[in-house]
Amino acid sequence: MKSLRQKGVGLFSLLFILFSCSPETNQEFSPEEKPLEESAVLINPVLVIHGGAGNILRENFTPEQENIYKNALKLALKAGYKILENGGTSSEAVIIAIQTLEADSLFNAGVGAVLTHEKKVSLDASFMDGKTGQAGAVAGVTSVKSPIELAYTIMHKSKHVMLSGIGAEKFAQLNGLTMVDPSYFITKLRLQQVERVIAQEENQEHVFYDPIIKDKKMGTVGAVALDKYGDLAAGTSTGGMTNKKHGRIGDSPIIGAGTFADNATCAVSATGHGEFFIRNVVAYDISARMKYQNSSLKDATQASIDNLTTKKGEGGVIALDKNGNVAMTFNSSGMFRAYAKSNDEIVIELFD
Amino acid sequence: MKSLRQKGVGLFSLLFILFSCSPETNQEFSPEEKPLEESAVLINPVLVIHGGAGNILRENFTPEQENIYKNALKLALKAGYKILENGGTSSEAVIIAIQTLEADSLFNAGVGAVLTHEKKVSLDASFMDGKTGQAGAVAGVTSVKSPIELAYTIMHKSKHVMLSGIGAEKFAQLNGLTMVDPSYFITKLRLQQVERVIAQEENQEHVFYDPIIKDKKMGTVGAVALDKYGDLAAGTSTGGMTNKKHGRIGDSPIIGAGTFADNATCAVSATGHGEFFIRNVVAYDISARMKYQNSSLKDATQASIDNLTTKKGEGGVIALDKNGNVAMTFNSSGMFRAYAKSNDEIVIELFD
Repeated sequence: MKSLRQKGVGLFSLLFILFSCSPETNQEFSPEEKPLEESAVLINPVLVIHGGAGNILRENFTPEQENIYKNALKLALKAGYKILENGGTSSEAVIIAIQTLEADSLFNAGVGAVLTHEKKVSLDASFMDGKTGQAGAVAGVTSVKSPIELAYTIMHKSKHVMLSGIGAEKFAQLNGLTMVDPSYFITKLRLQQVERVIAQEENQEHVFYDPIIKDKKMGTVGAVALDKYGDLAAGTSTGGMTNKKHGRIGDSPIIGAGTFADNATCAVSATGHGEFFIRNVVAYDISARMKYQNSSLKDATQASIDNLTTKKGEGGVIALDKNGNVAMTFNSSGMFRAYAKSNDEIVIELFD
Repeated sequence: MKSLRQKGVGLFSLLFILFSCSPETNQEFSPEEKPLEESAVLINPVLVIHGGAGNILRENFTPEQENIYKNALKLALKAGYKILENGGTSSEAVIIAIQTLEADSLFNAGVGAVLTHEKKVSLDASFMDGKTGQAGAVAGVTSVKSPIELAYTIMHKSKHVMLSGIGAEKFAQLNGLTMVDPSYFITKLRLQQVERVIAQEENQEHVFYDPIIKDKKMGTVGAVALDKYGDLAAGTSTGGMTNKKHGRIGDSPIIGAGTFADNATCAVSATGHGEFFIRNVVAYDISARMKYQNSSLKDATQASIDNLTTKKGEGGVIALDKNGNVAMTFNSSGMFRAYAKSNDEIVIELFD
């Protein structure tokens, strides 16, 4: 009879192939050996995801539109949670959940990423493993199908934490990641958006305008997970800001700002106006408040977002501690967010 | 009679022209208006600089070589301290001190930066203002004469915190910064180094080999300052790692990892094996220990470097608090470092 662990691996492979269409890179995700049988008490796994924070107001959504977003979040949540339930690691669950969101054109990551001033994609992502303290990050890639997979691969296969641009693309190719033509990511909607923003530019810079999400600088996807072994992981993936220029790097690929994970404290993925998250080192600040002030996850995330509010920074975070406590805290009108603590305990929310 | 403040500005302009040969960019550094006359008590200004940490051992230096390094540090320290003494801001002092080190081929920043695998420079820098919490950073530029000046200009003139690559170069040009041919930075010594490292590569990756500093991954310059008005600032500039590949970004341009400043706590500039500084968010960690644990600067820096030591990360930091306390803490064999608390109280050290 197959152990839970083995089933988890099998299912993981299946899901991976399903979402990435890249069986040859499956080895990237070969799970670490874990002494499942020796472990007396297994923790109840938890997965939390977000699809971006911003000016997300109920009055701008039809019931159908609301359902489309909820279903998209549910799909990613289910895909990731199945991994955890079947004994997979938090890292695996984070990657699968984010890959599902990257593949969905609704969100500003992977397919449907917002476009730069040059009408191109420039994708950023980062990943951190709370057990080992290892991390990987990538900034400014245009032809790597799954930026979060590249961040994860950098963590495992590079001596560096952060790679960028053409060099990062070369590294991805060398490591057998699926490469795509940059047009793969570009949707008609995003092209219209950036064209509208460029036309408006003389009056108002860096406007993010979406017919549903009437927003400026928001939109990113992320996931944090706690697995049965008590290990935390966090990841974030984004297209950045509509009409971004000059090789702008936001908070998403910055360990400490957009992503952080430490088994001793929490796992965090952020979304919002990245510049504020960089200056306030938000993801690590939450961990530091827990470590040095002995704050609860809830208090630490609230205090960190309150600090952002006083500085006029807008956005939110999802966070998860080693005891499975969940925080989904934001100061914007809404945040696409969802968590699962079991197959029955699923919460999906869009508005405040 | 000229006020101290006005003299400071005059001297600053002079020094700036001297070191940057770029009078047209002088406006970048036009000091903020400060109510000097209204301020009853002026704080004694302090400047701390570093020129990199690493395997810096007394036995590898002749007395002449030791003097060359000490004099180079002294020059940068004096240039920056004069600014502070004459009523200039901590930001101005940090920029001038770092520009002096960038212009000196002894250090791994600006002229004499180490070379990438492609035998090119790829320069990174960041700057943070402890009074305003504003920051600027740049990664991977090849033809901007002073990367620290670009980081500072990004802080002031861009809506973004971090720019990279060709886009960042364009931004520099648009803002009138001095551009140079990439060959301006390349020295014969660094070319020999990278060629030796590439030749050795099959056995040992990413070796940093210098005939004096027998080191692997070290070398960066930085400065932290406290001005008469009680304001802190921090900056860091680097060429990164010899033989770096794939668009690697280290800790130096990462706010929170390589650079951080907050008037409420401290100003920090880091140097060392950047990947460890990113994962451990070292610069902000020191600030967080002071803010959340009420640690002294000394205890906070020591604890943060001790944490790095347990994780086998090598390097050091310079740090300065609002009361003018100085910490120069490292776990490597040595760190090029110096501070001035007055014209008479100058300390310059290389070894442990």
